Amino acid sequence: MAQFDKKIQKIGVYTSGGDAPGMNAAIRAVVRVGISQKLEVYGIHNGYVGMIENKIEPLQLRDMANIIQRGGTILKTGRSTEFMRPEGRARAAQNIKNLGLDALVCIGGDGSFRGAHALWEEHQIPVVGVPGTIDNDIFGSDKTIGFDTAVNTALEAIDRIRDTAASHDRLFIVEVMGRNSGFIASHVGLAGGAEEIFTPDANTTVEKAIDRINEAKSRGKTSSIIITAEGQKPGRAYDLADAIRKKSGMDAKVCILGHQQRGGSPTAADRILASRMGAAAVDALFKGYCDVMIGTEGERLIQVPLDLVYKNEKKNQLDLISLASVLAT
Amino acid sequence: MAQFDKKIQKIGVYTSGGDAPGMNAAIRAVVRVGISQKLEVYGIHNGYVGMIENKIEPLQLRDMANIIQRGGTILKTGRSTEFMRPEGRARAAQNIKNLGLDALVCIGGDGSFRGAHALWEEHQIPVVGVPGTIDNDIFGSDKTIGFDTAVNTALEAIDRIRDTAASHDRLFIVEVMGRNSGFIASHVGLAGGAEEIFTPDANTTVEKAIDRINEAKSRGKTSSIIITAEGQKPGRAYDLADAIRKKSGMDAKVCILGHQQRGGSPTAADRILASRMGAAAVDALFKGYCDVMIGTEGERLIQVPLDLVYKNEKKNQLDLISLASVLAT
Amino acid sequence: MAQFDKKIQKIGVYTSGGDAPGMNAAIRAVVRVGISQKLEVYGIHNGYVGMIENKIEPLQLRDMANIIQRGGTILKTGRSTEFMRPEGRARAAQNIKNLGLDALVCIGGDGSFRGAHALWEEHQIPVVGVPGTIDNDIFGSDKTIGFDTAVNTALEAIDRIRDTAASHDRLFIVEVMGRNSGFIASHVGLAGGAEEIFTPDANTTVEKAIDRINEAKSRGKTSSIIITAEGQKPGRAYDLADAIRKKSGMDAKVCILGHQQRGGSPTAADRILASRMGAAAVDALFKGYCDVMIGTEGERLIQVPLDLVYKNEKKNQLDLISLASVLAT
Amino acid sequence: MAQFDKKIQKIGVYTSGGDAPGMNAAIRAVVRVGISQKLEVYGIHNGYVGMIENKIEPLQLRDMANIIQRGGTILKTGRSTEFMRPEGRARAAQNIKNLGLDALVCIGGDGSFRGAHALWEEHQIPVVGVPGTIDNDIFGSDKTIGFDTAVNTALEAIDRIRDTAASHDRLFIVEVMGRNSGFIASHVGLAGGAEEIFTPDANTTVEKAIDRINEAKSRGKTSSIIITAEGQKPGRAYDLADAIRKKSGMDAKVCILGHQQRGGSPTAADRILASRMGAAAVDALFKGYCDVMIGTEGERLIQVPLDLVYKNEKKNQLDLISLASVLAT
Repeated sequence: MAQFDKKIQKIGVYTSGGDAPGMNAAIRAVVRVGISQKLEVYGIHNGYVGMIENKIEPLQLRDMANIIQRGGTILKTGRSTEFMRPEGRARAAQNIKNLGLDALVCIGGDGSFRGAHALWEEHQIPVVGVPGTIDNDIFGSDKTIGFDTAVNTALEAIDRIRDTAASHDRLFIVEVMGRNSGFIASHVGLAGGAEEIFTPDANTTVEKAIDRINEAKSRGKTSSIIITAEGQKPGRAYDLADAIRKKSGMDAKVCILGHQQRGGSPTAADRILASRMGAAAVDALFKGYCDVMIGTEGERLIQVPLDLVYKNEKKNQLDLISLASVLAT
Repeated sequence: MAQFDKKIQKIGVYTSGGDAPGMNAAIRAVVRVGISQKLEVYGIHNGYVGMIENKIEPLQLRDMANIIQRGGTILKTGRSTEFMRPEGRARAAQNIKNLGLDALVCIGGDGSFRGAHALWEEHQIPVVGVPGTIDNDIFGSDKTIGFDTAVNTALEAIDRIRDTAASHDRLFIVEVMGRNSGFIASHVGLAGGAEEIFTPDANTTVEKAIDRINEAKSRGKTSSIIITAEGQKPGRAYDLADAIRKKSGMDAKVCILGHQQRGGSPTAADRILASRMGAAAVDALFKGYCDVMIGTEGERLIQVPLDLVYKNEKKNQLDLISLASVLAT
Repeated sequence: MAQFDKKIQKIGVYTSGGDAPGMNAAIRAVVRVGISQKLEVYGIHNGYVGMIENKIEPLQLRDMANIIQRGGTILKTGRSTEFMRPEGRARAAQNIKNLGLDALVCIGGDGSFRGAHALWEEHQIPVVGVPGTIDNDIFGSDKTIGFDTAVNTALEAIDRIRDTAASHDRLFIVEVMGRNSGFIASHVGLAGGAEEIFTPDANTTVEKAIDRINEAKSRGKTSSIIITAEGQKPGRAYDLADAIRKKSGMDAKVCILGHQQRGGSPTAADRILASRMGAAAVDALFKGYCDVMIGTEGERLIQVPLDLVYKNEKKNQLDLISLASVLAT
Repeated sequence: MAQFDKKIQKIGVYTSGGDAPGMNAAIRAVVRVGISQKLEVYGIHNGYVGMIENKIEPLQLRDMANIIQRGGTILKTGRSTEFMRPEGRARAAQNIKNLGLDALVCIGGDGSFRGAHALWEEHQIPVVGVPGTIDNDIFGSDKTIGFDTAVNTALEAIDRIRDTAASHDRLFIVEVMGRNSGFIASHVGLAGGAEEIFTPDANTTVEKAIDRINEAKSRGKTSSIIITAEGQKPGRAYDLADAIRKKSGMDAKVCILGHQQRGGSPTAADRILASRMGAAAVDALFKGYCDVMIGTEGERLIQVPLDLVYKNEKKNQLDLISLASVLAT
């Protein structure tokens, strides 16, 4: 966390990393709160890519019309390898300064915040972060923008798959997003009534899963759903299906939900979260705070230093997985 | 809050008051956690009506199959005037005792908890409450079961209405549920990008609303949506439309969303909340706690004495309404 | 039906009357098929209002990006009393001629086609009609654009209401759109499992409805849903509820679904229908046909003279209502 | 087609092959129309598997409550290799006769109808077929039960994926169901605005797809979606992505929508189609017709001899693919 003492007049906003539903609501909040406070607000396209390539344009109130309900990000997003190098960041910083932007709001995840922190450390550009990622794996915030929507999208798919599983007396393995994190898997698993949940952090084993399914069968349950986070690479569900087949002879169908989890109209919770966080980010800049992320703690908004955010790992709620296990009996 | 020192073996569960999506998920959690702990669990039908009429039946694991995703309540609900009288409660208590039920879980709102408290006070029947109502107006819990679903259902309707409003350059007044409370209105209004929000607790006036709409028009916005909570009686939106017409000559179309806000498959958040609360209720009874409600404070579950719950009023987040106002510019 | 022998080079497209989901998909088809055939395509705003006020602008391929999935109409719609008078039409026709538009595509309903016919009769402006209305009450086409979406939107609401009806053992009267037509009511009633369906053309009576509900009760059914078309004015459901109460003592809850039935992202069927019809309209103009509407007969597209369309009334499928009655037993 | 002259008193109904949304609505119609005509109706579980294993039970009016809106099939379905052999069919036929069932209604696809035809040919058991499959690939019927729902489910996923594609300027290849048939792909592709559509029957090539995408890029379009039917085996999308990468260097993301397309609450169109077809099947049996399938031709129901159905192949509407190609420019 840091403080700067310049009165801001022009700010920029960008989305970075994977897109998440609700990013548009956050952009809208930054722009409209900013303009209501007499700021000029600029949109930086494609994240750090556009910052380096100087794809930056002024945003007006009317540009924000009719976007609160849209998935994706109207500013587009991107991943820049060039920005990882000091020269890339210097070029980006120069563009920001040339345009006279006094401060930035960065909507993204860990990698994006690392870049934002560097902009402050190396070039004294004040940045406030807003956590936007469907994975919910951001230290310092109970919730991230897009997570609620992604979980509900995955849940709808699972509700549908259960119809087929029940009609055919089948075992399904459904793979949801989450490389290093199991938040989507644990939430969807509990909400979807899954028999077993595999995440990078839970200690579920194939043997336990087979035991549980056999136990369920003995009680008369003829179909089951296992949820797995994608883990190191998409396609983990196929490996799980193989392992289950080899150890038990049971045949499992695989569904990989994939990128549909990223899109779609944001839920009410995500729109509200994004609106509040976007407004709070501008407010923080007004008060001279920077190098922080806006987070939530319960219903309250808090500020967390950016380096704390990306240097720490958020723990998944493993109790949800235990609860799911009891409730799916 | 109170403690009792009997080891429980048989418990009952009931839903009471207005139905809310997620009640089934809560029932499922009570039954499955209960049975996993070797309890017998009984379902009481139609709330206090069934308690008086002795409509009480044992529930098994399999009765809970395939209900987590269903709206409404499989135990049905009801409102009993007889239970408001001591003789009614005595009759209900006698039925509970005749069946040998050691404790109860009550899923409902303020009125239901008042009854639950009386069962403990007058007849020493231990009850734990679980807040289930779409209105979110329960003191002691940030969130109630069903609220998130109701807000999303209303939001979908508003997103649709906006298509028509924009195509016809019209003003719409949309009435959402909430007699004494403005939670749905404020959340839906912010998430739906409404120009103005009327709730029982906010100080919006017809004059202000007209000013805002005229102002929006002068900026080129040709359609607007006003959200209002139903207030004392459904149909308030018609009165608002009349007042606006009289004072400004503007013609407003009215939509009353009505009972569809009560039903539907619960969202992930409501299923998870209900599952956790149902489990926590059984857990509390195991530890000998009663006369309390399970509530949430941020991500954590807490226990709140029942009389505190129904004697206090939960304040709406009026800052959401101010924020909505800035963001709809 | 008529033929004209001018080779078209510039055409205009407009939406008129009530908006319907899928109108954007039809506009997109007209524009993109037109441009692919080297035409210039102009968009006329607010229907005949914009034709009179000369709110007409060229449309490009990119203007059509990302609209196929959006409800409402990007060209907006309107109802013009001025256009009902010869002078109004003359002014509109002059604007069309001044711009050098060779022909028009009109997306709308009966009233819009009456106007289109007049443009041809009085001013020799060739017009092809595309039936866009949620009511499905257009003679000469099995289906109209928007009907499928409206029915599914109403159905979702009814599925939700059924949850509450069942949880409370209640009778609900749900009012769907349709002033002079019962298409939405009959389709939604059958698909929603309604106990009784009131439409302007069916001979359901309050007495019969009461009998059916009592009969259902005697078979153990404790909740019922009645669907009614709005008829002469919205609010008919309240009158029905009163009549039922007076004659039977039964209390009924009323839901008026209202304008949400007009909006929302169009279903696949509506997007496909709109795309095919829009393309066929341009194709018809290319071949020199005008004063016709593109309709469907089963899977095939047909051409129907405009005056036949608005002078005839399309009959509702009353057998759906009888079937619904048998199936709701 | 055949006729039999026994007056029916007891009938059986079963679902067979892949499950499809709307099968429950069809079962409901068979049962309720049957009982309204004083028939006894039996449900055969798991298709031909249950017919052989004698898993057959009487169905009552109340068993049909609340199923019209549910995906899957309450009778479950199955695939029986034993039934493909004469001895298997003999055993099944014996069970039917032992129970005194006079006739059957078979809800399924080509394979199921082949079996139904054999029951009539070899054992004189009258069967009427109802086409239930998401693939729509049944000769003799414009539409099959479940197709409309599957297309809409896939479309929702594609709308979501487009959000991400647009935010990242990416090419996506989305694989929908359809082994030997391209109906889902062509309909979803047109409705979803896909740039290119691969089906088993269309002559799209990787080279053409690359050309189109490059052409779109040159017009400023930065993201594209290709739809492919799964073809011979699920996973074809990966092969396509490889081929595109090798030939053009373009990187494509792959999404395989999978089994979620089978489930979910049926659309209005599917519920209505299923209700009408189920009723018509019982009606046909009453009139002594058998060995036929109920089909649709436009809005009308028709009867088609079972052997015609499974011996012929239904042609996909390739004009939808050409139209999609023009409209995605």
